[in-house]
Amino acid sequence: MASEAVRDQNNGNEGENRDPGFCGKLMNKVVEFPRKLKKLGQDDPRRIVHSLKVGLAVLLVSLLYYFQPLYDGLGATAMWAVLTVVVVFEFSVGATLGRGLNRILATFLAGFLGFGVHHLANLSGETAHPILIGVFVFLLAASVTFLRFFPRLKARYDYGLLIFILTFCLISVSGYRDEEILEMAHKRVSTILIGAFTAVFVCVFICPVWAGNDLHNSVANNIEKLGSFLEGFGDEYFKVASNTESNKALLQGYSSVLNSKQSEESQANFARWEPRHGKFRYRHPWKHYLKIGTLTRQCAYRIDTLNGYLNSEIQTPLNIQSNKVQELCMKMSSESGKALKELAWALKTMTKPCSAASCHITKSRAAANNLKSLLKTSAALLGSEGIHLLDIVPAITVASLLSDVVSYAEQIEKSIHELSSFSHVQFKSAEPTKALQPCNSCASSTNDNVPHLVITIHKLPSQQEIGSKQGAAN
Amino acid sequence: MASEAVRDQNNGNEGENRDPGFCGKLMNKVVEFPRKLKKLGQDDPRRIVHSLKVGLAVLLVSLLYYFQPLYDGLGATAMWAVLTVVVVFEFSVGATLGRGLNRILATFLAGFLGFGVHHLANLSGETAHPILIGVFVFLLAASVTFLRFFPRLKARYDYGLLIFILTFCLISVSGYRDEEILEMAHKRVSTILIGAFTAVFVCVFICPVWAGNDLHNSVANNIEKLGSFLEGFGDEYFKVASNTESNKALLQGYSSVLNSKQSEESQANFARWEPRHGKFRYRHPWKHYLKIGTLTRQCAYRIDTLNGYLNSEIQTPLNIQSNKVQELCMKMSSESGKALKELAWALKTMTKPCSAASCHITKSRAAANNLKSLLKTSAALLGSEGIHLLDIVPAITVASLLSDVVSYAEQIEKSIHELSSFSHVQFKSAEPTKALQPCNSCASSTNDNVPHLVITIHKLPSQQEIGSKQGAAN
Repeated sequence: MASEAVRDQNNGNEGENRDPGFCGKLMNKVVEFPRKLKKLGQDDPRRIVHSLKVGLAVLLVSLLYYFQPLYDGLGATAMWAVLTVVVVFEFSVGATLGRGLNRILATFLAGFLGFGVHHLANLSGETAHPILIGVFVFLLAASVTFLRFFPRLKARYDYGLLIFILTFCLISVSGYRDEEILEMAHKRVSTILIGAFTAVFVCVFICPVWAGNDLHNSVANNIEKLGSFLEGFGDEYFKVASNTESNKALLQGYSSVLNSKQSEESQANFARWEPRHGKFRYRHPWKHYLKIGTLTRQCAYRIDTLNGYLNSEIQTPLNIQSNKVQELCMKMSSESGKALKELAWALKTMTKPCSAASCHITKSRAAANNLKSLLKTSAALLGSEGIHLLDIVPAITVASLLSDVVSYAEQIEKSIHELSSFSHVQFKSAEPTKALQPCNSCASSTNDNVPHLVITIHKLPSQQEIGSKQGAAN
Repeated sequence: MASEAVRDQNNGNEGENRDPGFCGKLMNKVVEFPRKLKKLGQDDPRRIVHSLKVGLAVLLVSLLYYFQPLYDGLGATAMWAVLTVVVVFEFSVGATLGRGLNRILATFLAGFLGFGVHHLANLSGETAHPILIGVFVFLLAASVTFLRFFPRLKARYDYGLLIFILTFCLISVSGYRDEEILEMAHKRVSTILIGAFTAVFVCVFICPVWAGNDLHNSVANNIEKLGSFLEGFGDEYFKVASNTESNKALLQGYSSVLNSKQSEESQANFARWEPRHGKFRYRHPWKHYLKIGTLTRQCAYRIDTLNGYLNSEIQTPLNIQSNKVQELCMKMSSESGKALKELAWALKTMTKPCSAASCHITKSRAAANNLKSLLKTSAALLGSEGIHLLDIVPAITVASLLSDVVSYAEQIEKSIHELSSFSHVQFKSAEPTKALQPCNSCASSTNDNVPHLVITIHKLPSQQEIGSKQGAAN
């Protein structure tokens, strides 16, 4: 910090107008702080509710101290209850339940083991007692610490293993002095139970935040973000839209999907602790969400590559932009974007993916196939107007990547269908009107848009037909 | 679990040979457990050392109980020291120091504040005392919990904020009953100091694990993984190598790079707590590693897309594979791979990137430029042998992606150069023999391979020249 301050002051001497100096920066930070706090609350109002809930839980458990009869029973160990509430209370119900159960179980088990070791050491005589306890403490602390490196144990029981070491050491070591070890263990367990139940009670019954629900929504939102990018990409890349700067910023929403793995995995771990809530039964297949999430991320990697072409200085020349490749690329992009948005909506509302999604996917696949057959007649693109192969390399790469994206959209659709077919997952059917009636753009199209028919068709629709369809869709 | 067991048993009845049943599975798990434990230790032997260190630290601090004079001074509060060791001791020095300092500072501050509130409440009379304390506890717990949502505070001071709430509640609430509040605060602070110092001492002076060193190595290893993929990709894609299956598995090493963001960020946060160690001074620019890491990940996204083409069923037809596009793609891939490996080595050993790296990058850039000029004369590829444009779409896409990868390799080189130019970073110069002498393949090449010259050249080397150079390089 000190050297930064010196550097800032030096900069301040050189160009006072540009650099506000250390004091100025500090002032800025102080002024900005309430604004940032406000934004933090506005972004997710559940954060404010959570903070108030923690305050309430701590207040409730501190009543133990104020009421004489409770205090007489527990004495100074009542502080374990306060400690438990503060340490166990987490944002989501699953995380709180997980920590609470870990803490209670680990305390019980370690308490019993500690008592056993204490008893064993007592039998061994005065001299051997501290040595035996020391050996046990060393061995147990070292081996349980090693177990914490186990990825599966770390994901669900890390906190429990920590508390296990803690309680075992406390009970067995302090048992060496304290003759009333049983009473101490009993008090510790009961205060921890009181604290954990207070935390769980407040967390579950006052505006609960379900990790499972969050995971469900975040997977759906991620798919939607990719859809939004793809809907806007065609216009942006081929410079159809006018106000380019603002649109480019809007398209960057997908970037948060790239690094979503760890938060999804921890949410899935928390969700497993949660009881039935809302639309989700107890053994909801949370693991399957991770599968959908992985597909979404792989699709996002392709989209990140596509995004590189948006900002690339090498653009396709204008005479290429106005041709059929452009038309088909834009169709692939917008249709797969619409499909992903429909799928995200279906997942979010837990409705069986309606025909609209598969209709859009079929259309994007048809556009990809049309592009393939167009490229077979390469004379249409090259030679005639003196266009080099080099000129269409970016367009071909974009088309190729879009074709990958269409495959991923198909895979995402398939995995959402899989999710809806699990026996204990209740996806409601789409409303009859919506299920029977395909999307607007499909309604006005001809027979070749019946889902999954185009793949086996031999006569591809002519460009005029596609043009008229697109006109109807817009 | 119960339903799984039933399902497993049902499966067992239907096909006993395939399914080992619940008991069999349990047996398998029990048998596999020691093997997994052994692997865990072999993967990183520092885990075993860490576990033994934790055991030792707990043993050291539990000596407080065994020695009469120490116990007389601290009494039962000595357990806070055990608790502190168990909770503070982390794998790396940075994490342990961070947690220890957070715990000590937060305990001090909250202790003072708690004492102040206790004093204030005492002045307000018997009836108002519990109400006033309750209000303070609620407000402080709620507001500090809200602060924990702040990303910057969460990254470095999350544990401190938690301990702040904890200690404040303990001191102010239990102060309501306990008249010897000052003595309690004093004992708590001193036992926490003892515990934290024991943990830090053992962590730093016995086989320390430095988070900064780990971050340094993991960033370099990630670059190396990408280099290994690229070196093998060309042969694999164009089916030059014979044993395909084993090679494909070898190429998957890059996939861990895709999700490295969070671990790199936490390592950078831990590294900031660390004092000078090994090659790193106190204010080493850890943030810059995150920049290199981001570039590496973006490059990895392109590589993931490339990897999709390895497994794709649509392969470039054979007559294309044997032509010049293949030759140049393979050159781009292998040269950028070699460049990334050289850069990884330079970063790992903190040697200024030698001319070998920039030589490889120049070569890969030259191959990309040659490919561009080749594509301008599209007649060489199409028409003559009845090849459709569609046939070369995968090859063109791969070439285009490889060209992106070459750009990223250039950016990674630049950012490693930037890192080596920071005033307080000591990158040693490459050994004189190595610095003066370019890599083997460069030594045998002609003038057009002088670093960064090809970019401004107007006459591109002919295909024969490149062929002869490649022959010399292999």
